Amino acid sequence: MSPKPGTPKKNLMLFSGRAYPELADEVAKYLNVSVTPQSAYDFASGEIFVRFEESVRGSDAFVLQSHTAPINQWVMEQLIMVDALKRASAKRITVIMPFYPYARQDKKHRGREPISARLIADLFKTAGADRIMTMDLHTAQIQGFFDGPVDHLLAQNLLAEHVATTYADEEITVVSPDAGRVRLAEKWADQLGGRPIAFIHKTRDPFKPNQAVANRIVGEVKGRLCVVIDDMIDTGGTIVKAVDALLEAGASGVVIAATHGVLSSPATERLAGCGAREVVFTNTLPIPDEKRFPTMTVLSIAPLLARAIQAVFEDDSVTSLFGGNA
Amino acid sequence: MSPKPGTPKKNLMLFSGRAYPELADEVAKYLNVSVTPQSAYDFASGEIFVRFEESVRGSDAFVLQSHTAPINQWVMEQLIMVDALKRASAKRITVIMPFYPYARQDKKHRGREPISARLIADLFKTAGADRIMTMDLHTAQIQGFFDGPVDHLLAQNLLAEHVATTYADEEITVVSPDAGRVRLAEKWADQLGGRPIAFIHKTRDPFKPNQAVANRIVGEVKGRLCVVIDDMIDTGGTIVKAVDALLEAGASGVVIAATHGVLSSPATERLAGCGAREVVFTNTLPIPDEKRFPTMTVLSIAPLLARAIQAVFEDDSVTSLFGGNA
Amino acid sequence: MSPKPGTPKKNLMLFSGRAYPELADEVAKYLNVSVTPQSAYDFASGEIFVRFEESVRGSDAFVLQSHTAPINQWVMEQLIMVDALKRASAKRITVIMPFYPYARQDKKHRGREPISARLIADLFKTAGADRIMTMDLHTAQIQGFFDGPVDHLLAQNLLAEHVATTYADEEITVVSPDAGRVRLAEKWADQLGGRPIAFIHKTRDPFKPNQAVANRIVGEVKGRLCVVIDDMIDTGGTIVKAVDALLEAGASGVVIAATHGVLSSPATERLAGCGAREVVFTNTLPIPDEKRFPTMTVLSIAPLLARAIQAVFEDDSVTSLFGGNA
Amino acid sequence: MSPKPGTPKKNLMLFSGRAYPELADEVAKYLNVSVTPQSAYDFASGEIFVRFEESVRGSDAFVLQSHTAPINQWVMEQLIMVDALKRASAKRITVIMPFYPYARQDKKHRGREPISARLIADLFKTAGADRIMTMDLHTAQIQGFFDGPVDHLLAQNLLAEHVATTYADEEITVVSPDAGRVRLAEKWADQLGGRPIAFIHKTRDPFKPNQAVANRIVGEVKGRLCVVIDDMIDTGGTIVKAVDALLEAGASGVVIAATHGVLSSPATERLAGCGAREVVFTNTLPIPDEKRFPTMTVLSIAPLLARAIQAVFEDDSVTSLFGGNA
Amino acid sequence: MSPKPGTPKKNLMLFSGRAYPELADEVAKYLNVSVTPQSAYDFASGEIFVRFEESVRGSDAFVLQSHTAPINQWVMEQLIMVDALKRASAKRITVIMPFYPYARQDKKHRGREPISARLIADLFKTAGADRIMTMDLHTAQIQGFFDGPVDHLLAQNLLAEHVATTYADEEITVVSPDAGRVRLAEKWADQLGGRPIAFIHKTRDPFKPNQAVANRIVGEVKGRLCVVIDDMIDTGGTIVKAVDALLEAGASGVVIAATHGVLSSPATERLAGCGAREVVFTNTLPIPDEKRFPTMTVLSIAPLLARAIQAVFEDDSVTSLFGGNA
Amino acid sequence: MSPKPGTPKKNLMLFSGRAYPELADEVAKYLNVSVTPQSAYDFASGEIFVRFEESVRGSDAFVLQSHTAPINQWVMEQLIMVDALKRASAKRITVIMPFYPYARQDKKHRGREPISARLIADLFKTAGADRIMTMDLHTAQIQGFFDGPVDHLLAQNLLAEHVATTYADEEITVVSPDAGRVRLAEKWADQLGGRPIAFIHKTRDPFKPNQAVANRIVGEVKGRLCVVIDDMIDTGGTIVKAVDALLEAGASGVVIAATHGVLSSPATERLAGCGAREVVFTNTLPIPDEKRFPTMTVLSIAPLLARAIQAVFEDDSVTSLFGGNA
Repeated sequence: MSPKPGTPKKNLMLFSGRAYPELADEVAKYLNVSVTPQSAYDFASGEIFVRFEESVRGSDAFVLQSHTAPINQWVMEQLIMVDALKRASAKRITVIMPFYPYARQDKKHRGREPISARLIADLFKTAGADRIMTMDLHTAQIQGFFDGPVDHLLAQNLLAEHVATTYADEEITVVSPDAGRVRLAEKWADQLGGRPIAFIHKTRDPFKPNQAVANRIVGEVKGRLCVVIDDMIDTGGTIVKAVDALLEAGASGVVIAATHGVLSSPATERLAGCGAREVVFTNTLPIPDEKRFPTMTVLSIAPLLARAIQAVFEDDSVTSLFGGNA
Repeated sequence: MSPKPGTPKKNLMLFSGRAYPELADEVAKYLNVSVTPQSAYDFASGEIFVRFEESVRGSDAFVLQSHTAPINQWVMEQLIMVDALKRASAKRITVIMPFYPYARQDKKHRGREPISARLIADLFKTAGADRIMTMDLHTAQIQGFFDGPVDHLLAQNLLAEHVATTYADEEITVVSPDAGRVRLAEKWADQLGGRPIAFIHKTRDPFKPNQAVANRIVGEVKGRLCVVIDDMIDTGGTIVKAVDALLEAGASGVVIAATHGVLSSPATERLAGCGAREVVFTNTLPIPDEKRFPTMTVLSIAPLLARAIQAVFEDDSVTSLFGGNA
Repeated sequence: MSPKPGTPKKNLMLFSGRAYPELADEVAKYLNVSVTPQSAYDFASGEIFVRFEESVRGSDAFVLQSHTAPINQWVMEQLIMVDALKRASAKRITVIMPFYPYARQDKKHRGREPISARLIADLFKTAGADRIMTMDLHTAQIQGFFDGPVDHLLAQNLLAEHVATTYADEEITVVSPDAGRVRLAEKWADQLGGRPIAFIHKTRDPFKPNQAVANRIVGEVKGRLCVVIDDMIDTGGTIVKAVDALLEAGASGVVIAATHGVLSSPATERLAGCGAREVVFTNTLPIPDEKRFPTMTVLSIAPLLARAIQAVFEDDSVTSLFGGNA
Repeated sequence: MSPKPGTPKKNLMLFSGRAYPELADEVAKYLNVSVTPQSAYDFASGEIFVRFEESVRGSDAFVLQSHTAPINQWVMEQLIMVDALKRASAKRITVIMPFYPYARQDKKHRGREPISARLIADLFKTAGADRIMTMDLHTAQIQGFFDGPVDHLLAQNLLAEHVATTYADEEITVVSPDAGRVRLAEKWADQLGGRPIAFIHKTRDPFKPNQAVANRIVGEVKGRLCVVIDDMIDTGGTIVKAVDALLEAGASGVVIAATHGVLSSPATERLAGCGAREVVFTNTLPIPDEKRFPTMTVLSIAPLLARAIQAVFEDDSVTSLFGGNA
Repeated sequence: MSPKPGTPKKNLMLFSGRAYPELADEVAKYLNVSVTPQSAYDFASGEIFVRFEESVRGSDAFVLQSHTAPINQWVMEQLIMVDALKRASAKRITVIMPFYPYARQDKKHRGREPISARLIADLFKTAGADRIMTMDLHTAQIQGFFDGPVDHLLAQNLLAEHVATTYADEEITVVSPDAGRVRLAEKWADQLGGRPIAFIHKTRDPFKPNQAVANRIVGEVKGRLCVVIDDMIDTGGTIVKAVDALLEAGASGVVIAATHGVLSSPATERLAGCGAREVVFTNTLPIPDEKRFPTMTVLSIAPLLARAIQAVFEDDSVTSLFGGNA
Repeated sequence: MSPKPGTPKKNLMLFSGRAYPELADEVAKYLNVSVTPQSAYDFASGEIFVRFEESVRGSDAFVLQSHTAPINQWVMEQLIMVDALKRASAKRITVIMPFYPYARQDKKHRGREPISARLIADLFKTAGADRIMTMDLHTAQIQGFFDGPVDHLLAQNLLAEHVATTYADEEITVVSPDAGRVRLAEKWADQLGGRPIAFIHKTRDPFKPNQAVANRIVGEVKGRLCVVIDDMIDTGGTIVKAVDALLEAGASGVVIAATHGVLSSPATERLAGCGAREVVFTNTLPIPDEKRFPTMTVLSIAPLLARAIQAVFEDDSVTSLFGGNA
């Protein structure tokens, strides 16, 4: 009679922060589950309260948040959700952040700066996260900031496929808007079938220190369709200057493609009026109607997220979703 | 010649978040130092950037933030400041939060809730905090949430002294607005010289479940000046109902005293119009002019903070500032 | 042929320290398991030795100890058992302490004190505990001292049910023996159907410092059956003074109810002779025959513990055992 | 005016548990300090309370406890003292345990046993210990159980010096009482000037399993003074059988020397009546008068402890106190 | 529809470092699995690269490395493999090191030395190891260096069985080559059926400090077959001197048996020419043909490793493989 | 008399691994200290032994190692040195690695790879490192892999200054040898006074998969002196192909500049014969005579390291050594 045997079970549960519930609902539909019901609200003081309405004991919990503005609010909400899951005996907790918050602060650019992207990884570890799932990191090294498994999904494949299909017959040059994204441009060039690349070199006049910067194009763009790529677009300043320079240099047209549409003001105005034929984003961050314009295309990452969650739950390969390259 | 001797130094540096710089300036004045200059701003995406303008290497760093709304913003800013200090080789980092954020979520009130007050302690530990200095915790057990020294300062002494002086000749009853603050009322009663106490008992009619709650006063209040005390006042709902009940029960007058003036809307309207003779707060949280009204008194904690910082820096006793009771 | 699949199993195993093996046996009976046989004895030096007689590899281990005197002996024994389980490859280790040791030292009452209740949580974490199961904590904040799931069972429901049944027709007032338990009294008052509450206010004569303290009753007790409640009774001094004061104030009778019967000498004499109609405890701590007297009732927590263990093992909700309130 | 410089100070403070305050007093005298005054007592429940009477902020704290029976009591007391020091902002905490508790449980002798000696190291680390100072470890590997500096003092030098002086002219053989202490015997043989060694080999008759064990002496002892050495003597059973065997084998006399006098009953009777010329211990553990007998010698470790504490405080070499061998 | 149930699986996967792939292949054969295919190579700079060719998600991973020279290379490779497994979501990682690296540096022999055996345990913990499996540790205390389960397999049983069979009719004395292995000799003596033991005592002439050391045999060896045992043989210097001394003292023959054949130069020459009848090792370390000689016997540990791995995977007792003594 | 005051001291001690002692000696000379004497050697088995010859108690320890081949040997040696320092009570331990080992494995390039650069940071943290000092990281994000202060020194300033002086009058184009170093080229271009930049784009023919890659130059190089820059040169393959392509494209000359001269075979042959006018390195790694050739220039980092160590020791700003950019 001595010990008591039982049957191990496992149970996928999906949780959603309040930043972008529509994305979670779409993912849930693909997974054929419901988002776990919860009470979540702000006290008048701004403090967040969360409580799950169902038992989460023993669950394989996936906690999705979209880190749009007010970003600190949503980071804290997700941390609190993870704490509640840990204390309520979830078996495994995967934090999903399609847009990794503070990814741009991934090093000390100068002395006495924080490395906030590492801090974010540590905060989630401390709260109780076992794993992280994220997309198109600003720099891939951020994977190494977390002490545990990171599933780094590649949404740029979605973008590249869209561009390849839409502009199949064009003479394309892939353009990096600055020196830091040339490697990314090279990947795009490969994915689009061995296209040439170019980039914008920001120069300073050595004899006029502290003076305005000029944009010099390095590479061939004349008479070609320039696909300007980036991981994210925030206020759009850099990208729009790149478009100006390219058109001035004789580009036959410009298409902009970026994974994360942060789109802080005045990005919408700038992009809508910059002369690009099309501006393509994914919905890692919500893009409300008032930020959209006719030439904007938004591709959904929900099918990809759902497939990755399913693979993690079933212990199937995630890497194979990307041909081994993730 | 072999090793190289040097002279150990130590250096007090004061840092301030952006939530309430006036408090830091006042503390700095008492300490006879300047707040360390820094760049701190929000990116358009809401992400915070911080950089210190002077070397902080080897410093004994005190980082003051006032956790007012938007509270998650200020928590994250302080975490980022601590990360930057750690990476810039500060020798010791003391996090000062006069109002401890999420203090009310100090236990699971029901299943599947977070314990956010513990989470806050762990987040600061992870970021690099060596010590915490705080004031009038919602429950003193929160000291035990941090794995390290916590200097728990008692601002309620300031309040009690003010009440004792102002209403020296009155027949005072100390009143707790609910069952959870009776212990605090007892402390006040001692500090005011052995006064009687009372509290408001919220009851439910057992035959009418889910129905409105009645406030029953337990203790003697008739013809007496009732000093209603609390650690914090948020929207003021509970406290104002307590005032109503007390006046109805024949109290000769009511004075309200609380350390932390969270004062979420519509607290100001309620307090200004509730009939209290005086409402006393400290400035652990900023109380802007538009939230003030004629019968409000705000006492500054800056001298107390400055004395405590000085004691920590000099390895002097902090406990002795409170007669051994902290 | 490459990897080798297997079938996951799980196995509930119950372990018992030597402080109160009868409780473990009773729990085992309800669970329909045996307590795992072990060698456990003290060396002549006082050092404890433990060895399990059966393989515990892969088990879901529940380690029950009752923290009665000599309490440090039993704490150390349970720590050593957890260490042995960890090193013998138990899969998950749940530490069960119906009476949480050092719960009263849950904060620094004055400077330079330990927070031993937090220390206890950390010691068990270090030894290898994954989870804690406990009952009627002195303060609920202690849940937050452990970095992991805590199942906080409510034994007071047992007590309240007993009182409600036995004294169904009486005019009951629920009485807190001091200012710190008024919140608990309020919960009881609700559970007994909207009863009034009272408490004992300890006062000091301000003009005679350091002099004896008077007990002033706050609330209505005359002609009513007073149910004096507490989480634990140690030497019984406070509670017996409360009974005196209540009877003097005209209470028609007194019933005492507390979860944890620490019952250090001379508690038994005091309680037996204090004039209470009934004194009700649970058996979170052993109450040997020589500490019992005719008006004492002891309710067993074994059924509740067994149900909670079963729920944890099966990943069922523990909260639902208490209507969501745990 | 910006930052505020100060002068670093350091301050040696000595703390003592209640197990053997006379040792702490003796050490204090050599150091020319007082033991820091504290309140320390047991609650009726057995729970320990500790509070320091003076500020310990910034101190270099040395916490001495002697781990005699009831050993778990004294372990827990020392842990609680360390917790209190950590929370009261001691700068560095050195735990001194002349007799390391649970040193004999330094490995799993068989499956499903704890490694309690490692557990002890981890518990003190968790409580807040920065460093450990100990003496004549049962096995030197225990140094590696602590994640930090361990000062391992050699009290056996005191013993060896005493034997060398007292029995200068004798033909000595150093004898290990079992196979596990032969290495220690070899060290003694060197310290006494190249003496021969012997040991007692416990044998089993292979044809009579589970039968009594015989003691076979390996090495030359006839006509020689046998110095039987060990790190500790608990009940004395092994050592007394060794003495019997040696005398029977023609030893001219026997002297017993061990660092730690655990002396659990009936060690005193055994040792007093075993025929040894002298039995030598140190006072790492208290040896009360009722455990002493005429041929027992007790050497004080206080001067050695004081010198080591002084060296640690002044950042002087401790190793050099032992000629580089510690 | 809400959550999504799944079926837990488990999957044994075996991984092998490059130090001794033949051993892994042999183990794999007994387990009826394949070693998981991987890319592993050294960059020209000496940096190691590892990548697994198959998904390891959710696997129960066993990582075998044999720590032969260049030992630091193989330690680092195994650390890197563990890191890759952790980041690729292996469920449980067991590090197998038949020969524990740096086992001899298990304590500070003198001041200012490392405890490298503890460091090794911590490095693997940090990389992500959940458990360790090892064999015939230099000192059993090393088990306590790892914070988690250690399966300590006893290969010496293999050796003892071989000797017992081969030399069944001889008059055997078990000989420890120095004072530190006498306990091990005692175990052997028991396993061989109550044989006598002896050891070599290294002495120094006290009047000629720093002079050569003499080997004095303690115990009876004349006319007997001496089985000299050790856990490992490195350069063979000590062991060969022991053989000389034994033969000179009239031993009828010598057999050498040791678990780990480190066999650094000139061990092979020494052992081949020392006059021993047989030299027996296991293959915890590879012994290439050029290090072998006619009287050497090498016993394979692969069957034992395979049985232990199987038991760990199936949650069966490992201890029972050794009659409870591991 | 109670506590005992003392005078805090601090003491810079420099330690050197065996990989490149000449660099440590040069640094020591600039610091006016000696490298601390130590015993360090390899056992025949390859295991490393280290012992310091002088007391290191309380020291501010700087441990310099140059991570040349055999790199794993030197990593392990430095880890062991750190362990020994920690256990010998060094006060603060700064690990100096001018060339950060495994820096190129700073992310998972594909699935199931390690992130060895993060592992390295964690290993040193575990061993006891408080801080890291390093130079010209392969990617600056590696700073974030360490949980503590990292002083990231910029040796490229030395190189740029040398190039600026030597080729003051040339028409320079700064060339990145691949897409990943364009950002670095941009920094050089600024430092050399607003020069144009170019890079080599590796392309694949989309119709001939898996076929050889072509090098397409993006940017203007004809008739200009091309300064090809990189952080490290290992086998030199990439860089030499870049030189070929540049000369073919009409560059007037080529100069190569890189911080870390890994120079694995056949780098020397390739570089000596590639037609570059000059090849400039620093001595972060030793470059022995047999790897040198007439057009190679090696600049010493010793003055820079010495200044940074001095600043860390004195709590002076390190950032200011680089105009705030580190």
